[in-house]
Amino acid sequence: MHRYQILIEYEGTNFSGWQIQKKEKTIQKFLQLCISKILKEKVHLLGSGRTDAGVHAIEQSAHFDCKKKVIDLIKFVKSLNFFLNKKNISVLKIRKKNLNFHSRYSAKYRIYEYIIINRLAQLSLKKNRAWHIRKKLDFEMITKGAKKLLGTHDFSTFRASNCYSNTPVRTLKKIKTKKLNDKIIIQFKSKSFLRNQVRSMVGCLKYVGEKKWTLKKFENVLKSKNRKLCAPPAPACGLYLIKVIY
Amino acid sequence: MHRYQILIEYEGTNFSGWQIQKKEKTIQKFLQLCISKILKEKVHLLGSGRTDAGVHAIEQSAHFDCKKKVIDLIKFVKSLNFFLNKKNISVLKIRKKNLNFHSRYSAKYRIYEYIIINRLAQLSLKKNRAWHIRKKLDFEMITKGAKKLLGTHDFSTFRASNCYSNTPVRTLKKIKTKKLNDKIIIQFKSKSFLRNQVRSMVGCLKYVGEKKWTLKKFENVLKSKNRKLCAPPAPACGLYLIKVIY
Repeated sequence: MHRYQILIEYEGTNFSGWQIQKKEKTIQKFLQLCISKILKEKVHLLGSGRTDAGVHAIEQSAHFDCKKKVIDLIKFVKSLNFFLNKKNISVLKIRKKNLNFHSRYSAKYRIYEYIIINRLAQLSLKKNRAWHIRKKLDFEMITKGAKKLLGTHDFSTFRASNCYSNTPVRTLKKIKTKKLNDKIIIQFKSKSFLRNQVRSMVGCLKYVGEKKWTLKKFENVLKSKNRKLCAPPAPACGLYLIKVIY
Repeated sequence: MHRYQILIEYEGTNFSGWQIQKKEKTIQKFLQLCISKILKEKVHLLGSGRTDAGVHAIEQSAHFDCKKKVIDLIKFVKSLNFFLNKKNISVLKIRKKNLNFHSRYSAKYRIYEYIIINRLAQLSLKKNRAWHIRKKLDFEMITKGAKKLLGTHDFSTFRASNCYSNTPVRTLKKIKTKKLNDKIIIQFKSKSFLRNQVRSMVGCLKYVGEKKWTLKKFENVLKSKNRKLCAPPAPACGLYLIKVIY
């Protein structure tokens, strides 16, 4: 068997997310089908993690095994992109890997970015690519709130009910916030995330930015480990999987 | 009469450009119609300049006159955006102006940006939003080439045959180049531009970046004032009108 890692960009708007589901258009499904077609053997594609419907990826990582050795990797990428041309999926790179490489379990860090556009006017250029918030947000407060999430916590408050993880404890290694005109970017780095964790955290940070919540309240919500106290999660369209680090 | 300036963002992909044309979907046409409807009087909307089909605007500027005074500007913007919601046009701001303000003739500078994505894989997130160039470009060469355009020149080489300007002489005040991973951004600032000037210059800079042309050749093409020597203009989708400065 030969193992290959594949790096993928996608515009998630018209997909039902990464993970294969019967009858639904998903990225994994299209890619797996294309790879199998080109290699003329049935392969199973395994992603670093699932992204929800509408979430984008700058660089998702996945791997697959096949009996045939892929001789010309550049030609293979070209063929894949040819098939994916109208799907808003781009294959950025393919790398030969040892069989001990695993796109999900070998990952050291995952980086996600969340984009908010804070202005009155609706979005044109960023439609489906950012969360449009009309109410004026206090960027300093969002930054202060985000800092409270750093380190190791029980993130039960920010965990979707259908999260299959063994433990709600995660360690946020890095959080960066940035403001560029009306754009607010919040970047999160962690070994792994709970299901819906980033969107749930951003939903709560929005409450902090709106001053609906004080920083104290935000801290209490985090500490409560009570999902019911979480603000409505931020919409999928503002979320980008930036990179998986091995 | 009352004069108002209006600032607009648009995603140009599905439009036949800014300027009104019979039967064609243009930004000016939709906006003018919406303003007239809301004010219940026929207005004429005048832009700072036309953008071609497929060109985007971060902040286009235009003005119109009307008999009625607009009392609540914020409410007016909201109504406009409500009508434009599905059109990929966003009205960012409306300002009351004196009758001596003119969106086109009062402009001191116009800033345009051109975005290139230089990689093998086709575009997903930047589809219709950048020029995809597969061949490896030399960013330093592009930067050096761009510098040659600074200052006052006869830009006849970069002028479309249907350009109605009195003179082919323009003064490029500022050119900035930036590279972010596979993204190359070239920003141009000038009082005004000839028709197709930015796209023509970028088309030639691509030749320099590909090393199809030397810097000397590029300079000679500029000096030739001969349109026939110009490289094919860069596609519209990579061009953004960033701002009009008064």
